[in-house]
Amino acid sequence: MRTDQQPLRLTLIAPNGRMGRAIALAAEEAGDIQFDPDRGDVIVDFSVPEALSTSLDRATRSGTPILIGTTGLDDFADRRIAEAGRHVAVLRAANTSLGVALLSELVERAARVLGSEWDIEVLEMHHRLKRDAPSGTALLLGDAAAQGRGHALEREEARSGRNLQREEGAIGFAALRGGTVVGDHDVIFAGRQERLVLSHRAEDRMLFARGALAAARFLRGRDAGLYSMRDVVEAM
Amino acid sequence: MRTDQQPLRLTLIAPNGRMGRAIALAAEEAGDIQFDPDRGDVIVDFSVPEALSTSLDRATRSGTPILIGTTGLDDFADRRIAEAGRHVAVLRAANTSLGVALLSELVERAARVLGSEWDIEVLEMHHRLKRDAPSGTALLLGDAAAQGRGHALEREEARSGRNLQREEGAIGFAALRGGTVVGDHDVIFAGRQERLVLSHRAEDRMLFARGALAAARFLRGRDAGLYSMRDVVEAM
Amino acid sequence: MRTDQQPLRLTLIAPNGRMGRAIALAAEEAGDIQFDPDRGDVIVDFSVPEALSTSLDRATRSGTPILIGTTGLDDFADRRIAEAGRHVAVLRAANTSLGVALLSELVERAARVLGSEWDIEVLEMHHRLKRDAPSGTALLLGDAAAQGRGHALEREEARSGRNLQREEGAIGFAALRGGTVVGDHDVIFAGRQERLVLSHRAEDRMLFARGALAAARFLRGRDAGLYSMRDVVEAM
Amino acid sequence: MRTDQQPLRLTLIAPNGRMGRAIALAAEEAGDIQFDPDRGDVIVDFSVPEALSTSLDRATRSGTPILIGTTGLDDFADRRIAEAGRHVAVLRAANTSLGVALLSELVERAARVLGSEWDIEVLEMHHRLKRDAPSGTALLLGDAAAQGRGHALEREEARSGRNLQREEGAIGFAALRGGTVVGDHDVIFAGRQERLVLSHRAEDRMLFARGALAAARFLRGRDAGLYSMRDVVEAM
Repeated sequence: MRTDQQPLRLTLIAPNGRMGRAIALAAEEAGDIQFDPDRGDVIVDFSVPEALSTSLDRATRSGTPILIGTTGLDDFADRRIAEAGRHVAVLRAANTSLGVALLSELVERAARVLGSEWDIEVLEMHHRLKRDAPSGTALLLGDAAAQGRGHALEREEARSGRNLQREEGAIGFAALRGGTVVGDHDVIFAGRQERLVLSHRAEDRMLFARGALAAARFLRGRDAGLYSMRDVVEAM
Repeated sequence: MRTDQQPLRLTLIAPNGRMGRAIALAAEEAGDIQFDPDRGDVIVDFSVPEALSTSLDRATRSGTPILIGTTGLDDFADRRIAEAGRHVAVLRAANTSLGVALLSELVERAARVLGSEWDIEVLEMHHRLKRDAPSGTALLLGDAAAQGRGHALEREEARSGRNLQREEGAIGFAALRGGTVVGDHDVIFAGRQERLVLSHRAEDRMLFARGALAAARFLRGRDAGLYSMRDVVEAM
Repeated sequence: MRTDQQPLRLTLIAPNGRMGRAIALAAEEAGDIQFDPDRGDVIVDFSVPEALSTSLDRATRSGTPILIGTTGLDDFADRRIAEAGRHVAVLRAANTSLGVALLSELVERAARVLGSEWDIEVLEMHHRLKRDAPSGTALLLGDAAAQGRGHALEREEARSGRNLQREEGAIGFAALRGGTVVGDHDVIFAGRQERLVLSHRAEDRMLFARGALAAARFLRGRDAGLYSMRDVVEAM
Repeated sequence: MRTDQQPLRLTLIAPNGRMGRAIALAAEEAGDIQFDPDRGDVIVDFSVPEALSTSLDRATRSGTPILIGTTGLDDFADRRIAEAGRHVAVLRAANTSLGVALLSELVERAARVLGSEWDIEVLEMHHRLKRDAPSGTALLLGDAAAQGRGHALEREEARSGRNLQREEGAIGFAALRGGTVVGDHDVIFAGRQERLVLSHRAEDRMLFARGALAAARFLRGRDAGLYSMRDVVEAM
């Protein structure tokens, strides 16, 4: 696909983790990726919060762009990431699907145009074992909608009872859990007698590994700064 | 359509209420319905809880079948309805859509066959002004699923947080609110790598009035007993 | 809502047609609209192809912006409309839903970003009496997708048989017909193990009348030129 | 799961084919399955039409039940299968998903109750490489609907044009193709202002292998006769 370029060398943290192995598989498929434990073009860390500090040091000392997919990071990690972004290119992503990144852009645009007369609801379904609700991706989509409307996200969750009142401008969230669903997300804009529904369906977890490779390709040789999957999509 | 029959005469309680007027419109469309304030073939009450007692007396004294669509009834009303059912045909329905009645039958069947290895989730969406969640119809569908599985409904609602665990055998409910949606219901059976989804979409409130007429036709000349919309569907 | 403005005066062609009456109803709801058979701020023509010529003359002679919702126009009408657009503001719309106009913009953007590795399918469902397939709105959405990809629309329709081969870059269309469905449209972007689905649901035909009023408000005092519902959305 | 029983021994024809390997994987997961090339409790043939004759001979000579998942069989094969069913248990299945088998039962029931006033449409989506349309499963679902209505299937496909007329009682089919979709099927019953939609979503091809094992368990020790996946579901 990218025969005009040198292969992309990745320094993959925790190559034996679930995401590490998925990225290795996706790289094999892609053909233009090599792994180099020490001096890659891009550092890729989908491991554990404890490893982040070492990965960021490595990135800044060597001037290597870094992709961070680790979840469950705390505020201190946020500050370290922001600091690293002053020295190298840093892309942090809770969800590396290109489809979701594009969806969040479309959701922001739709929310901006439609204004608060259209109610917004975010629905997601995941497998029975998922422990958190709403999903991180649902929150990311809700944030995009709120940003489009021009104010902070006001969540309306867990509706149950007899005297409920939908708040003007709130964004509703609902979570379904069951079976083996990889991840379905719907953002519903409900207006007067019409609805706009913007949806994403993840069929297989491998898509997140392929999205991580797209992010790594984007990062190679990129200037210092903080980036998101939205930037990867904009650059396509 | 039913030229072999005498027109059906309805005694409509509260003919100027929202449902009363819708039933009048549907009757005009249907052509085989007349209204008789005193001596109809069937009494139809979609009014307020306070009116129920008088309607039931009227039905039992005159031996006239009665359709009750009133919502918000208490336990005492339940007992009065059960008592009336010993003397005349009584059909009580929270939702008079034939599609929903059939759906609840299909849901019960699916839950019986699939067993508790398939997780069940009930999703509904209604307009922004609806005050109760889950909807009465969602609960009716959840009850049908629980009955199919052979045990009482255990509801799992309002998921939100970080350490959730889906209970084996529970039935999840989620409620979306927004815009002018008349009523969407989905019952999702999520198994291993496959899903069965049984859905109903209400496009216009008139369908409930037409379903009420179908129920009234079913009740004419019917023996004493307690009936439901499921019986109307079975008899079609 | 727009108390800062003079009421908008519409010259409505064929006020007793189906759309004419719907627009009258929507105007009553809106409160800021008046009708003036002779000297409105905007001419609104949702009538028959034969009437177009007179309406355009009227618009150009009096310098009044015109909204054209008439369907089934031929190439000659296209040229007359283009000509009129040199003298007054002309907005032509096959579908006056704001949701659909926004959807077509989002579809174009998604198609541009995703490229032809993602297959595009356009699905629509309408009531049993609709005579043409695909719907005009489905074609409009397909055109938006093709424009996003940067080439002309290549339609792939009516799949049936045993040796089919999906053409690279083609856009598939499928039409469902049944019942009383007002209009559902889905544009599906199917990538590797993920899908992006952008959908519109019309619940009631009145929404097209309200969209026509939004278009008329947009046209008042507007410069000469050819406009579309997309321009109305962009200006919101 | 079935610890009270001897392991089920399968004679798997073409164990290195795509379905053969999937069945081996599913058997490993299940734990109660062994493979015996010569004297299994059940013969399982998901290979090529040319192999069928030998497999059937083997089944009838040894009195062993047989599961046939081979597709593309001709009329002569149909007769040979019917003949074999007089001597041993024969189950033929174009789709071994239990969810689809249950869906076809629900579709038949719904079509019987709703009658021909509700229009029926069958929609399916599969990956971009699928060559036939409608899918075999869509046709199976259409047949179930026609059987519920009590007459032969009259297909209405490939709608495209300007003067279409939906035939009373016909069943419409539409096929979407794109990406890597494993298999989505929807049967839509469109009535007056309401819709009932019965859907199946296949997330991964492994589910067909697991369904094949369920069919094989059903066949062990079963009397001679012709069976379908519906019988497997009914027996659950």
